[in-house]
Amino acid sequence: MSRCLIIARFQPLHYGHMHVIEHCFSLYDELVIVIGMASQSHTPENPFTTGERIEMIRRAIKWRGLDLSRIITVTLPTLEVSRSAVHYVKLYSPDFDAVVTLNPIIRRLFLEEGYRVVEPPAFNRELLRGSVIRRLMASGSSEWKKYVPPPVVEYIEEIGGVERVKELYREKIPGYYVTV
Amino acid sequence: MSRCLIIARFQPLHYGHMHVIEHCFSLYDELVIVIGMASQSHTPENPFTTGERIEMIRRAIKWRGLDLSRIITVTLPTLEVSRSAVHYVKLYSPDFDAVVTLNPIIRRLFLEEGYRVVEPPAFNRELLRGSVIRRLMASGSSEWKKYVPPPVVEYIEEIGGVERVKELYREKIPGYYVTV
Amino acid sequence: MSRCLIIARFQPLHYGHMHVIEHCFSLYDELVIVIGMASQSHTPENPFTTGERIEMIRRAIKWRGLDLSRIITVTLPTLEVSRSAVHYVKLYSPDFDAVVTLNPIIRRLFLEEGYRVVEPPAFNRELLRGSVIRRLMASGSSEWKKYVPPPVVEYIEEIGGVERVKELYREKIPGYYVTV
Amino acid sequence: MSRCLIIARFQPLHYGHMHVIEHCFSLYDELVIVIGMASQSHTPENPFTTGERIEMIRRAIKWRGLDLSRIITVTLPTLEVSRSAVHYVKLYSPDFDAVVTLNPIIRRLFLEEGYRVVEPPAFNRELLRGSVIRRLMASGSSEWKKYVPPPVVEYIEEIGGVERVKELYREKIPGYYVTV
Amino acid sequence: MSRCLIIARFQPLHYGHMHVIEHCFSLYDELVIVIGMASQSHTPENPFTTGERIEMIRRAIKWRGLDLSRIITVTLPTLEVSRSAVHYVKLYSPDFDAVVTLNPIIRRLFLEEGYRVVEPPAFNRELLRGSVIRRLMASGSSEWKKYVPPPVVEYIEEIGGVERVKELYREKIPGYYVTV
Amino acid sequence: MSRCLIIARFQPLHYGHMHVIEHCFSLYDELVIVIGMASQSHTPENPFTTGERIEMIRRAIKWRGLDLSRIITVTLPTLEVSRSAVHYVKLYSPDFDAVVTLNPIIRRLFLEEGYRVVEPPAFNRELLRGSVIRRLMASGSSEWKKYVPPPVVEYIEEIGGVERVKELYREKIPGYYVTV
Repeated sequence: MSRCLIIARFQPLHYGHMHVIEHCFSLYDELVIVIGMASQSHTPENPFTTGERIEMIRRAIKWRGLDLSRIITVTLPTLEVSRSAVHYVKLYSPDFDAVVTLNPIIRRLFLEEGYRVVEPPAFNRELLRGSVIRRLMASGSSEWKKYVPPPVVEYIEEIGGVERVKELYREKIPGYYVTV
Repeated sequence: MSRCLIIARFQPLHYGHMHVIEHCFSLYDELVIVIGMASQSHTPENPFTTGERIEMIRRAIKWRGLDLSRIITVTLPTLEVSRSAVHYVKLYSPDFDAVVTLNPIIRRLFLEEGYRVVEPPAFNRELLRGSVIRRLMASGSSEWKKYVPPPVVEYIEEIGGVERVKELYREKIPGYYVTV
Repeated sequence: MSRCLIIARFQPLHYGHMHVIEHCFSLYDELVIVIGMASQSHTPENPFTTGERIEMIRRAIKWRGLDLSRIITVTLPTLEVSRSAVHYVKLYSPDFDAVVTLNPIIRRLFLEEGYRVVEPPAFNRELLRGSVIRRLMASGSSEWKKYVPPPVVEYIEEIGGVERVKELYREKIPGYYVTV
Repeated sequence: MSRCLIIARFQPLHYGHMHVIEHCFSLYDELVIVIGMASQSHTPENPFTTGERIEMIRRAIKWRGLDLSRIITVTLPTLEVSRSAVHYVKLYSPDFDAVVTLNPIIRRLFLEEGYRVVEPPAFNRELLRGSVIRRLMASGSSEWKKYVPPPVVEYIEEIGGVERVKELYREKIPGYYVTV
Repeated sequence: MSRCLIIARFQPLHYGHMHVIEHCFSLYDELVIVIGMASQSHTPENPFTTGERIEMIRRAIKWRGLDLSRIITVTLPTLEVSRSAVHYVKLYSPDFDAVVTLNPIIRRLFLEEGYRVVEPPAFNRELLRGSVIRRLMASGSSEWKKYVPPPVVEYIEEIGGVERVKELYREKIPGYYVTV
Repeated sequence: MSRCLIIARFQPLHYGHMHVIEHCFSLYDELVIVIGMASQSHTPENPFTTGERIEMIRRAIKWRGLDLSRIITVTLPTLEVSRSAVHYVKLYSPDFDAVVTLNPIIRRLFLEEGYRVVEPPAFNRELLRGSVIRRLMASGSSEWKKYVPPPVVEYIEEIGGVERVKELYREKIPGYYVTV
């Protein structure tokens, strides 16, 4: 049985992620989906809780008619970045054959540690990017809905996600978090 | 859609866990399976990695002919125990309607925070207990195989799990871990 | 007995905080004053130690002729921001009836978790802001003294606080801290 | 103004603590009361939350007719024990002239770092000990009430504290905590 | 250039450690000496600070006439035990060819991750053990001096180490630490 | 025996560090070299692992013909900045007589805690600065080699360090780290 590991923060899940997920569904038996920075929510970079991000992933996969029994979710707390972070992922995940990530640094870390890193087919990475989508949400434009699958748009509206993002972009709060 | 949350360490997965899982499969649409102390492995109390524990869960569920698309795995790092731990679980998990746990303390914590806690039908809790099974493994007896589903027995043997437990019971190592 | 919870970093205590504190003194029997990011000091965002911040709070309350027996101080280490942070505050604090905060995000987090959040009467939030006051200190202007109660001005001068802030704004140091 | 620092876990507050507190009230202007292991609750060693422990302290002080405006509460998360822990306490607390503790190790740590450590007048330390009182609670005996001030007994009963302790002594839970 | 990595806690340094160190001096160009649980001191299991342990190591090596320019000290904070701990060591240490450890678990962890683990020539592991030596110190016997090199005995007496150990064995303190 | 403590991150080691190290070699018997943020690597601010940084230090000292037996390396994990950080350094290090640092804040922290802080002879601090050198590396210019000792240039090239820095400056990754 072949397995591929996908690491992302899914803040929120967008068509870039779906592109990667569908690519892996076509090549591997199972997908380990690692949700990074699971211990953070309600910040400008990570507005959604891990629970909400799992909802997005499952609804989007169901919507595409893909088989939920082939995905394995792993929730990874915020880590200090270092070469040993790769092995922390390995501790949490069942064995896998290859890694897919949109992030050049995570790519490099896994390559340096000897893993096979798979490149997804090209797509518009300038627009399909969490930070772009969150800024659109914060700006009041409904443009963001073009980059997010319909059931995820619906879910975000159901939980008042756009209002949350707007408030989070208004003022920073005490507490540590990344600034991307 | 109804969901039930199961919290356990699965060190290793045994018939007590299967009892709970099958009970939930019969009552709820989906099961959130929270693997506790995910950041620990190779200690007397937590010999198996989280990845290995996910393997055990998936193989046992498949073996029973249950539908893997109905389970959602959540991996929770070791937490300092406190009332707020309940809300840390809530942060990591999609919404759920009830909690099932074999541990009276986790039960109490969720009850105090207003959750519905479901009691699984009775079974022999004196024997079906991770600590009992690990001690059997360490003692060299093959008795432990009576308490663990066949595909999990097979997987444990495949990864040299019994030898690992034997070594871990021989001498303690520096580092912090619980003493159950 | 009614209680209100105030969360702030008090870097340093200014008239905005006093405004909130006096408002609560007029409405509640007791005030739980939560000092956030208590584990940090000597950074541009958090120049003062928690001990120094407690001094500021007590001196300012005494100066206003308010009753110190009605305040309860709680010192909260730096937390990763998430929905569960609300419950970490709850763990540290005796029961309270309402929350007051000048920060829209903390306000939102408590509202989402079902708490009553009280709005203090309006005041000039553009000027009465720790970051504005710290920048004034760093610039060498004595303008900052207009925004801070006299006994706190005196205390800050007593401990060489202005010199400390000046140095902290000159160059950043290795170690993690927020960037507001 | 003279200040004395008291460090304890108050699990629960008993006459040994009151003995120390009253001794300090007679000798110092203000008391900094440091509540240790504030980040833990619902374990055999630390059954009560920090909020509950603050309640116990304030009710007991009021009951003895002592002035609440003379105490300053500081809530300290669980720390790894080391010589630098002394300085972590110093970071959280306003300046103090002496330290009082019933624990010989904390006494030694502060002495080694050059602090004045005050010995409280003698009392029966064999019985007035949190671990003894918690075991009495767990055993079902009402003997524990002899060692705890009446308003604290009443408060513990009000929050169902005895039942909680009984359950916590029945079975240990996953998560790290001290074993005293 | 060949390098060997030694992991131990050195609480205190004894002839068992010297045995390993001398063995490595005879076989490798350089020794990386990893001092584990560096963030802990003043507990029954870890009475000495990391600074004190470095002193012991350097004095003992000098005393044996070995070359200090061939050792590299690495100070490693207390880690939660897991397979990824191996890689945390790797992050802190320059490259090495083999690992030597007296602990069967650390041995196993490095073996499972593909490292070469070297067995030191046999010696009496029942007596040459930190826990045995600390208990002797606590008991008031001077027997412990038989197991520790003379310059280390002298240093321990110089810093009042025996008194410290005696006090630490008298009563446990709040805070988390291992129980070996 | 006199000892001096040097704190830096060595990202990478440059002539500014060598200036300080040689100054200390001329005045003190031994040098404790504290490598800060040892738990981080592969970020824009901290591209090199601690092991790699130890390599740089040892190769540069050997290259200058200085005696490696006179240096003691201490590896310090990322700390939240506060006054107590000084004492965390003290916990990890053998006793020292003075501190040398190029960072005005670390200087201030040690001064406030009563340590002797030594000023190194003047040098061009505008250019000899890790952040300047990393930016040069990222820009593709070979200018950076002017600021780094030849054996360190060679080592960085040997491990593909320039490529790593280039990639790390291209895009930020999830995980917490300082932004200098």
